[in-house]
Amino acid sequence: MLRSFRRVQQLNSNLRTLPSVRADCKIVINPCRMASSDFRIERDTFGELKVPSDKYYGAQTVRSTMNFKIGGPSERMPLQIIHAFGILKKAAAQVNKDYGLDPKIADAICQAADEVAIGKLDDHFPLVVWQTGSGTQTNMNVNEVISNRAIEILGGQLGSKDPVHPNDHVNKSQSSNDTFPTAMHIAAATEVHQVLIPGLQTLHDALADKAEEFQDIIKIGRTHTQDAVPLSLGQEFSGYVQQVKYSMERVKAAMPRVYELAAGGTAVGTGLNTRVGFAEKMASTVCALTGLPFVTAPNKFEALAAHDALVELSGALNTVAVSMMKIANDVRFLGSGPRSGLGELILPENEPGSSIMPGKVNPTQCEAMTMVAAQVMGNHVAVTVGGSNGHFELNVFKPMMAKNVLNSARLLGDAAVSFSANCVLGIRANTERIDKLMNESLMLVTALNPHIGYDKAAAIAKTAHKKGSTLKKVAVELGYLTEEEFDRWVKPREMLGPK
Amino acid sequence: MLRSFRRVQQLNSNLRTLPSVRADCKIVINPCRMASSDFRIERDTFGELKVPSDKYYGAQTVRSTMNFKIGGPSERMPLQIIHAFGILKKAAAQVNKDYGLDPKIADAICQAADEVAIGKLDDHFPLVVWQTGSGTQTNMNVNEVISNRAIEILGGQLGSKDPVHPNDHVNKSQSSNDTFPTAMHIAAATEVHQVLIPGLQTLHDALADKAEEFQDIIKIGRTHTQDAVPLSLGQEFSGYVQQVKYSMERVKAAMPRVYELAAGGTAVGTGLNTRVGFAEKMASTVCALTGLPFVTAPNKFEALAAHDALVELSGALNTVAVSMMKIANDVRFLGSGPRSGLGELILPENEPGSSIMPGKVNPTQCEAMTMVAAQVMGNHVAVTVGGSNGHFELNVFKPMMAKNVLNSARLLGDAAVSFSANCVLGIRANTERIDKLMNESLMLVTALNPHIGYDKAAAIAKTAHKKGSTLKKVAVELGYLTEEEFDRWVKPREMLGPK
Amino acid sequence: MLRSFRRVQQLNSNLRTLPSVRADCKIVINPCRMASSDFRIERDTFGELKVPSDKYYGAQTVRSTMNFKIGGPSERMPLQIIHAFGILKKAAAQVNKDYGLDPKIADAICQAADEVAIGKLDDHFPLVVWQTGSGTQTNMNVNEVISNRAIEILGGQLGSKDPVHPNDHVNKSQSSNDTFPTAMHIAAATEVHQVLIPGLQTLHDALADKAEEFQDIIKIGRTHTQDAVPLSLGQEFSGYVQQVKYSMERVKAAMPRVYELAAGGTAVGTGLNTRVGFAEKMASTVCALTGLPFVTAPNKFEALAAHDALVELSGALNTVAVSMMKIANDVRFLGSGPRSGLGELILPENEPGSSIMPGKVNPTQCEAMTMVAAQVMGNHVAVTVGGSNGHFELNVFKPMMAKNVLNSARLLGDAAVSFSANCVLGIRANTERIDKLMNESLMLVTALNPHIGYDKAAAIAKTAHKKGSTLKKVAVELGYLTEEEFDRWVKPREMLGPK
Amino acid sequence: MLRSFRRVQQLNSNLRTLPSVRADCKIVINPCRMASSDFRIERDTFGELKVPSDKYYGAQTVRSTMNFKIGGPSERMPLQIIHAFGILKKAAAQVNKDYGLDPKIADAICQAADEVAIGKLDDHFPLVVWQTGSGTQTNMNVNEVISNRAIEILGGQLGSKDPVHPNDHVNKSQSSNDTFPTAMHIAAATEVHQVLIPGLQTLHDALADKAEEFQDIIKIGRTHTQDAVPLSLGQEFSGYVQQVKYSMERVKAAMPRVYELAAGGTAVGTGLNTRVGFAEKMASTVCALTGLPFVTAPNKFEALAAHDALVELSGALNTVAVSMMKIANDVRFLGSGPRSGLGELILPENEPGSSIMPGKVNPTQCEAMTMVAAQVMGNHVAVTVGGSNGHFELNVFKPMMAKNVLNSARLLGDAAVSFSANCVLGIRANTERIDKLMNESLMLVTALNPHIGYDKAAAIAKTAHKKGSTLKKVAVELGYLTEEEFDRWVKPREMLGPK
Repeated sequence: MLRSFRRVQQLNSNLRTLPSVRADCKIVINPCRMASSDFRIERDTFGELKVPSDKYYGAQTVRSTMNFKIGGPSERMPLQIIHAFGILKKAAAQVNKDYGLDPKIADAICQAADEVAIGKLDDHFPLVVWQTGSGTQTNMNVNEVISNRAIEILGGQLGSKDPVHPNDHVNKSQSSNDTFPTAMHIAAATEVHQVLIPGLQTLHDALADKAEEFQDIIKIGRTHTQDAVPLSLGQEFSGYVQQVKYSMERVKAAMPRVYELAAGGTAVGTGLNTRVGFAEKMASTVCALTGLPFVTAPNKFEALAAHDALVELSGALNTVAVSMMKIANDVRFLGSGPRSGLGELILPENEPGSSIMPGKVNPTQCEAMTMVAAQVMGNHVAVTVGGSNGHFELNVFKPMMAKNVLNSARLLGDAAVSFSANCVLGIRANTERIDKLMNESLMLVTALNPHIGYDKAAAIAKTAHKKGSTLKKVAVELGYLTEEEFDRWVKPREMLGPK
Repeated sequence: MLRSFRRVQQLNSNLRTLPSVRADCKIVINPCRMASSDFRIERDTFGELKVPSDKYYGAQTVRSTMNFKIGGPSERMPLQIIHAFGILKKAAAQVNKDYGLDPKIADAICQAADEVAIGKLDDHFPLVVWQTGSGTQTNMNVNEVISNRAIEILGGQLGSKDPVHPNDHVNKSQSSNDTFPTAMHIAAATEVHQVLIPGLQTLHDALADKAEEFQDIIKIGRTHTQDAVPLSLGQEFSGYVQQVKYSMERVKAAMPRVYELAAGGTAVGTGLNTRVGFAEKMASTVCALTGLPFVTAPNKFEALAAHDALVELSGALNTVAVSMMKIANDVRFLGSGPRSGLGELILPENEPGSSIMPGKVNPTQCEAMTMVAAQVMGNHVAVTVGGSNGHFELNVFKPMMAKNVLNSARLLGDAAVSFSANCVLGIRANTERIDKLMNESLMLVTALNPHIGYDKAAAIAKTAHKKGSTLKKVAVELGYLTEEEFDRWVKPREMLGPK
Repeated sequence: MLRSFRRVQQLNSNLRTLPSVRADCKIVINPCRMASSDFRIERDTFGELKVPSDKYYGAQTVRSTMNFKIGGPSERMPLQIIHAFGILKKAAAQVNKDYGLDPKIADAICQAADEVAIGKLDDHFPLVVWQTGSGTQTNMNVNEVISNRAIEILGGQLGSKDPVHPNDHVNKSQSSNDTFPTAMHIAAATEVHQVLIPGLQTLHDALADKAEEFQDIIKIGRTHTQDAVPLSLGQEFSGYVQQVKYSMERVKAAMPRVYELAAGGTAVGTGLNTRVGFAEKMASTVCALTGLPFVTAPNKFEALAAHDALVELSGALNTVAVSMMKIANDVRFLGSGPRSGLGELILPENEPGSSIMPGKVNPTQCEAMTMVAAQVMGNHVAVTVGGSNGHFELNVFKPMMAKNVLNSARLLGDAAVSFSANCVLGIRANTERIDKLMNESLMLVTALNPHIGYDKAAAIAKTAHKKGSTLKKVAVELGYLTEEEFDRWVKPREMLGPK
Repeated sequence: MLRSFRRVQQLNSNLRTLPSVRADCKIVINPCRMASSDFRIERDTFGELKVPSDKYYGAQTVRSTMNFKIGGPSERMPLQIIHAFGILKKAAAQVNKDYGLDPKIADAICQAADEVAIGKLDDHFPLVVWQTGSGTQTNMNVNEVISNRAIEILGGQLGSKDPVHPNDHVNKSQSSNDTFPTAMHIAAATEVHQVLIPGLQTLHDALADKAEEFQDIIKIGRTHTQDAVPLSLGQEFSGYVQQVKYSMERVKAAMPRVYELAAGGTAVGTGLNTRVGFAEKMASTVCALTGLPFVTAPNKFEALAAHDALVELSGALNTVAVSMMKIANDVRFLGSGPRSGLGELILPENEPGSSIMPGKVNPTQCEAMTMVAAQVMGNHVAVTVGGSNGHFELNVFKPMMAKNVLNSARLLGDAAVSFSANCVLGIRANTERIDKLMNESLMLVTALNPHIGYDKAAAIAKTAHKKGSTLKKVAVELGYLTEEEFDRWVKPREMLGPK
């Protein structure tokens, strides 16, 4: 007898007898089944299965929960994908109606698909990301839910597949191989437009306000983390503004290829079992439903076999993350203190810091943002690896790629809003400290070069550094110039631009 | 008036008026508040806040849900961390009792902490990963829940902080800075022992069974994806077995440093506000509670400021992912077909493939596994970036690092079991096909070298390739040897090892 | 006495007495010194140093070779950066001449800078990438070489800094902080235009030719690596063509921000010590010298402190790598065999395979390409990490970022040409094998659905699969249709598109 | 006529007529051919080729330079691999001699292999990494060089393959498929032992010396980059010491699997064409030649088809990089200033900073180190991707994986020495500044809690923060305690550990 079989048996048994350890997992896989006392019987080509009677999904969905016990509830297919499928299935029903699908069936599908799209049926999608790499099981989950809900609308019996069949009607002229990438692109574009870009715009505006507010505050510059010549705090912030502005441009530059939809390619990209014009009508219908400029993909073979468009978008998100990391790092270092840091910025206090240390402001929004940035960089590698490993007519890393791209877009968008509202808007300049540091800076000696020459200027700076004294004091002591001359010549404000 | 402020206002307003778009998010941020009709008032040093009356958490938890609306419910702090905190807080109460904490209070804390540890209070931990990078808010969430639950046990009033104070009692001799890393290590070690290693062992045994089962099946080897000299199918599988065996060794090799606990370091690693021996007692108590060989970290400064141990563990998981990718890829290619692929393996059918194509087995378990592998590689980069960006006395990428390491361990462990049970155990060798391919192979000509010399052997192979004929036929046609000689000399079985 | 000091002493001593181990390193660090028997004395503010008399560089270059013995000769600053500096320094001399620089000096600098730009002085740049993160030492290396060469042109004495001073004249109105990023952008844009885009165009055209050549060859499709419905080999290749077409679009979409030059920002982005208009004139001069549409960066603070433009470009290169991995993988699997693989493509033989196995073609060009793809993915992470870790007014990962971006562009461009010339152009379709596989495919049964219904079609396919027979034979045996009907209805050619 | 063929023609022509652009490339591809005026004819199974008469390599090497014009000279196969091949070929000759190889031939091979191993023949290895993924061409390059050199030693004629044949004698009982991984492991283990571990040990000792030197300097701690309770500077450095100590442990923990050699597996792992015992003798001979504990790999199938051992080692190097990034970042921030940074450390001045700013010390060694760290993280991803993409009996990302692992080990080892010698050893504590910051810290108020209670202590701290005053002054002003009491109770030195 095989030891590995025994082991699996035993492991399953352990899972059953040690509920505390993996309770989350087991409850999660199909939480709905726990909650319902009644079942109905549904069947697929492999046989019959019990389905909770209060759920719209059917046998293939249940079978997937049995075959893919991986990761638990936090690993469910992102709801954005489910909602995008709602839009897609509605569009398909409308187009199929044009091509002759019974209007009664088409309309019921549209109504049910609408409910999926607006999130009304979220509880009926229990599958995890870690299933078949084409997302077929989620496509079938959607088909089953919409068909059963449409049957209900039309007064039929759940599970009867009559009068609305999950494959023949809901999935008509479609394959998982073209619908899943279509849903990925709809979801990604929607997330970018509804969460990411608004979030970045918010951050951009918040930083731009601060750049304007701080434009006359002159401060010491820092290169190599070391003291350097001055700039204004507004100039410093203008660099961040530019980064966020370009963040939006970068994301937008990737969108043209995300707007391309695979719908109409069916199983391998040829469009077998569709009608001429179906692909184009699908794209224009999705375009109308979402208000986003979707078009049909010019080459469906590429659209199924590769997801370079998502890798490209993920690359843009990765660049956004890089910008966010830089900005949030600067903000926390400039706001470090209150006594022993750089202390140029005063960050808003949002929550109790240590119970014993008043005045301690932890830059928690910066921390959330930099953690998000690190996550996005990691997500990007997962997307890259998945994107590179497609074979022949189909890339089968679709759910994983979708999950990571959507996660990155959402986290960046949300974090940008949180960072703006809870940090950037409340930043104040510690002008006293800024002035002090700036005026103490040995770099200001640069302004004396034209008047007393480099050698004398260098002597002043070196002496001041050695004695821990000020430039002015040393300059006068050395007899190189008068106090008045120093004040006339050393004007940081005139060091902020070309002449 | 500031444009960015208006934008945030407007964005918040949008969120309110467009519930469908972000419904998931808003419900998620503090789902508990929605569900409860009653509130109680709790306070922290920033003031009063309404807390749902059916929840044990307090003001600081609620405040975090307000300040960190990032990512939604799938982004909650992993439950493994919460459960590990339960163990940690119980251990601390026991040790503090030794050092003089009121036994009544200590025992109530222990009871409440136990409930946290076994997952009974999971609904009371609404915070997301994207909070302060020290995990302080989750530590406070735990302190609040345990103190309120302990107060309840002792007959007091929720929110009164009496007789069990979240800071003074539950957090006694602790800081977020040492408790969060301690919880990370407890959670990681537990996940490795309860999920990852058993999963890998299951896979190892399943593959080892197959290696044994297939030991006498001789097949063509493939290098550069091209035909090469033969080996046995069992030998091929033995390579996979070795990979999984080493996967476990690699993970175990990383554990010694994961077993080191930061507890006792408090705020910056010095152990301020602890008693001599506290750190060691904490480690031995956690060791007793978990059955895992935890020790106190020899250097607490390193244990707070760096999480190299998790980066190292993540590196081991990354190597496991690399092995899984290779094995799953081989299995799906060797099982490709049924007619137009390599077709050497017959993989189990687990779910309906295409509705029109019987016999089509999609290697869905391989796909789930390779998607998991890609995810783990991405998670590893996130952990690496986070681990490298600690500053001074504290690394503030803790929640993100913990999330990714735990996710990787869980996904690999679960996927290994799923892959074993639903794929490996059911693999059959297509011996007819294997024999055919092997016997047709031109590489077998190698065996003739000692008998007729390289040049004649080469001529046979070249002619056979050009004519699409067999070696034997061509060899005889060319007059180099007889059919009997060919059969005597060309014995693939004798090409499987050194002589 | 300090143990670590002794260790360094000893290590240095070991390096001296064990030349074989690290010979490459030691020779490399400053190879020129080995070759020359004579030295001259140059000085910087730290004192005097011996400089090989046959080299144009000066004291600061020599000092860097002493302080940064990291990595050896393969780690030298990429020559593309050096050549770009040649262009930059020439442009600066021209613009400075407009602003009043002595024409004699300016012209000599131009002549020397030209020699740097065209690679005539490559031997005079010994520094490695692993130096200061601003690239200051390479900027000084360039300044020293150009000043000494210009001095020579003007009849002066090497090392005298008269009449051409490295700082005052060659580096006039410049800082390392703005010149190095300017050189990075010039080099990256040039590599993209001279190597990457032409390489990708070559590959695009080669694949497009094949797509056209193969347009009438109908073959079995493969999804999940398993048999699926047919498409033409030309359609399959058209997907690759689309990927390469988009590769070029992606790279071009990233270029607008690469065309932005930091020149004129000097030390911290303010443009201190430049004249109004200098930045714009620099950009237009570089534009004129290179023929590429460079402009001055709209925000110099961003241009010095962040290198998001390179991260973005690297993200585009990463997406190209993903496409290359997919294409090269497909080609090697489709070309696997000759007997035991898929065998649909016949790849050109470029070099001896195994000495005993005629007909064995190793897909070595695919292997080089996929190795390049993996490298580019890794390079991208290095660029991402570097880009995210800038602080305040300066990112100090410049040389590392430049090295990786240039390496990625170069490798992809070169590999694309090599893959095109040595593999794609020579690919032939194995039409006999393709026909055989396609005609044996059980998926063709799909075409019978409209004629005999799904159930009978399924019965045919299932029976054929079980018996290992053909669809036609089984269909006739089962009495569902005649041989003629089968031939009339099952026409793969009609399954290649919508109807 | 095909447009792509014309394009390649034209591109080649461009390369010829525009030498400046790609001069480096063209010279590089086969630099030797340029330098020599004489050629001899060598042949492989594809025909005759001209070989420069002053080179030992033969036709297959030249053919590779023609087929793989990718990347230029900096992309050559790492010399560590070449030297390792020298050791391997010597070992093989010795073992083959035991098994009957003509001693005269064996001894000549040994002598020639020795010359390869010690770097005497480095100029004879022109091939780049981007060749066949099995490294076959480099194996043949080695075979050709050794055979020709051995022929020369024995008085024969170069290129005659007599009396020493590259395949029959130098490559006897070997395949590229087992020799290349063997050379990878020899090279990696050697680099770890000769460069990486000594480098890390040097850094460890340097930091440990500083930790000891600084043990009595009490300073403010920083968490979240913000002021926190005190620790000693020695304690802070002890964390770095621990990181480096564990760096070495991590690398060593990965070595057992690197010490396993594939030699004896030949083409697919079966050991075809070897003699029983050959594998073990090879390992023990290499062990004797190198002094490192190499053993024969227990499973040769795994050893050829996967390179998990290198992925694992790369993971350890990645963790080392993470530690280095943290340490170098801390050092540059703690050393930031001189006036406007944290200024607690005074870093050694190694080279001129700005020509106008005396006292500006750029932390250039930190910058080199952090750039190296970023590179190693990137290299690791390349290794991971390569390691995961092996197929069937052979992983064909070998040269790329080797290059990256060796590069990481070398860079980390070299940078550790450079950082130690040029930075760490010269670090001085700015005790005046450290004292000032520490004494100003509001966190010290913590020490008053036991004496005057939390509320009064908090009032002191809040008032001091608001007024910008000192704790002592405010405490006395508020009448909570006397100056003497303050001095007695607030003793930072007593806050450095548990009580």
